[in-house]
Amino acid sequence: MENVYNFSAGPAGLPKEVMQKAQAEFVEWNGLGTSVMEISHRSKEFIQVAEEAEQDLRDLLDIPDNYRVLFCQGGARAQFAAVPLNLLGSSLKATYVDAGYWAQSAVKEAEKYCQVDLVDAKTTKEGRVAVIQASDWKIDPESAYVHFCPNETIDGIEISDLPDTKLPIVADMSSNILSRKIDVSRYGVIYAGAQKNIGPAGICIAIVRDDLLDLAYELLPSFMSYKVLAEKDSMFNTPPTFAWYLSGLVFKWLKGQGGVSAIEQINIEKATILYDYIDSSAFYSNDVHAQNRSRMNVPFQLAKPELDEVFLKQASERGLVSLKGHRAVGGMRASIYNAMPIEGVKALVEFMREFAADNA
Amino acid sequence: MENVYNFSAGPAGLPKEVMQKAQAEFVEWNGLGTSVMEISHRSKEFIQVAEEAEQDLRDLLDIPDNYRVLFCQGGARAQFAAVPLNLLGSSLKATYVDAGYWAQSAVKEAEKYCQVDLVDAKTTKEGRVAVIQASDWKIDPESAYVHFCPNETIDGIEISDLPDTKLPIVADMSSNILSRKIDVSRYGVIYAGAQKNIGPAGICIAIVRDDLLDLAYELLPSFMSYKVLAEKDSMFNTPPTFAWYLSGLVFKWLKGQGGVSAIEQINIEKATILYDYIDSSAFYSNDVHAQNRSRMNVPFQLAKPELDEVFLKQASERGLVSLKGHRAVGGMRASIYNAMPIEGVKALVEFMREFAADNA
Repeated sequence: MENVYNFSAGPAGLPKEVMQKAQAEFVEWNGLGTSVMEISHRSKEFIQVAEEAEQDLRDLLDIPDNYRVLFCQGGARAQFAAVPLNLLGSSLKATYVDAGYWAQSAVKEAEKYCQVDLVDAKTTKEGRVAVIQASDWKIDPESAYVHFCPNETIDGIEISDLPDTKLPIVADMSSNILSRKIDVSRYGVIYAGAQKNIGPAGICIAIVRDDLLDLAYELLPSFMSYKVLAEKDSMFNTPPTFAWYLSGLVFKWLKGQGGVSAIEQINIEKATILYDYIDSSAFYSNDVHAQNRSRMNVPFQLAKPELDEVFLKQASERGLVSLKGHRAVGGMRASIYNAMPIEGVKALVEFMREFAADNA
Repeated sequence: MENVYNFSAGPAGLPKEVMQKAQAEFVEWNGLGTSVMEISHRSKEFIQVAEEAEQDLRDLLDIPDNYRVLFCQGGARAQFAAVPLNLLGSSLKATYVDAGYWAQSAVKEAEKYCQVDLVDAKTTKEGRVAVIQASDWKIDPESAYVHFCPNETIDGIEISDLPDTKLPIVADMSSNILSRKIDVSRYGVIYAGAQKNIGPAGICIAIVRDDLLDLAYELLPSFMSYKVLAEKDSMFNTPPTFAWYLSGLVFKWLKGQGGVSAIEQINIEKATILYDYIDSSAFYSNDVHAQNRSRMNVPFQLAKPELDEVFLKQASERGLVSLKGHRAVGGMRASIYNAMPIEGVKALVEFMREFAADNA
């Protein structure tokens, strides 16, 4: 099929150029006569891949020298356990900010390990779903850290401000890392499963401020220890080498696009086109307040939910795929991560317009 | 380079046919207009990949119905923690059989969680390294389970017998799963990192007898829980979908080769060719007793270790790559997993013969 635009929430579409390069060198990489996935992770060739990926990520996010970049396994769900196990130290509690599905999932896991001081940040504003501004989050100063999820893929909510606290701020950026400028120095730990804006599923990045490496619970499984991973350059165990390599290609691609500032402008443009159309239409709706609308995940509902299946089928025939909303909320969801070209969003809006006209 | 034979211990070479198929459909899979790695793990297309992979593995190993097949993240090192955390139950100890590097690594992690009753199974026989026969392992009946590693990639040791015990037997088969017939019903848990005989690094198979699913330590990170993974069909968190897909292709390839019995015969033949030549040569040596020589990993030493680098360079020029021994033992190591064709072993022996003649 020509010109497929893939709106999957994750595992999500990767940049076409990256996929084509990886395909071309899939069997015969770097003159070695083998694939990059068939060589030792300790070979000089792979070490170079690994180090370049880290450096490119450091360049893209302007990561200060006192932060370690770790390539982990187990995805963000593993980090839901790794964060308390690595950071609680002698503290018994941590503050978790709840603004959606993934924040709540992190809470559920953290409750195994500590007392969770929960900040319910969900609110309504002008009749729409919104998030209380971060400066108003009530944070217990005895917490070991404050955890939040700045982009909720299912709720379609994004939080762009940070609380005013001296505690380490921990952010699950699985679905918006590299999509907008951030000041890494304001965080204690940033983690992100790869399968949205970084690479394929099966690898997870953790960016950890180095003064937080010494707090780990003794009985933490070693492969989850930030300290062990930092000491072993993320090769305590055999890393997912192909996923690491592909992530590196994505970082190079993003640099070629002009880096995070440049992609942020494109992401703003893409999101604006889609939300503006939804707001202008009587047939589609999105109930999130403009202030907290996600630039990455745009859930929307049809005025006639009985047409959901027809919508999905016709969209798919036009090459607009994976628009089905999460089973927890229904409706539609367009995930428009970095790899989604602006043409894809325009094609979606064009289809939505025609569908509305035909079915209003 | 033409005809490269890759002797990497892991991540290891995959079957050429598998790599070529994966390359051909890398960007455009199954008529979807996207890669298999760019679709939701919950899509019907990926569920089919996942289920077929499991069924093919069940067929290959003749896995009884009362065993669950789990696709995990974190590799065998994660299982070093997952095994005690899932299986100890109310027991305070477990028996670990030590016959090499990886068995010892598992012990080190297990000691965090329980008292390890250690069986030192290393011995010498006719002046060679050997392993005490399993029927003579002294197993504490109060142990929760007995853990051993039937193939030691670094030591070049393989154990083909099983202890006579009623305790659950747990085996780290990372480097010899699918290389020989086994009777799964005699084990409690079999686990294996993929990157030798299954697929790319980043996925790990655990085959768990279902009466062992209810023993997990409450504070186990959820993504490591056998029970959670079993209940969620290994999709509690987003699985490494591409690695799962590729593993499935390897299973289909292996079925096409005639299955495990057929590949076992080829593996015996390959190992025999290589060990027979080493034993017949005064220039190369392997110090493991015939009874415990690994069919998968063949470490060997040159009579003149000062020629190691020259050997590696010349081998590499002939397309015989990744023969360098593990840094812990030095010398050479030829890993000849399922994907290594017999021609590769013959080419290696031919080169070794010439090199010995030139340098004796």
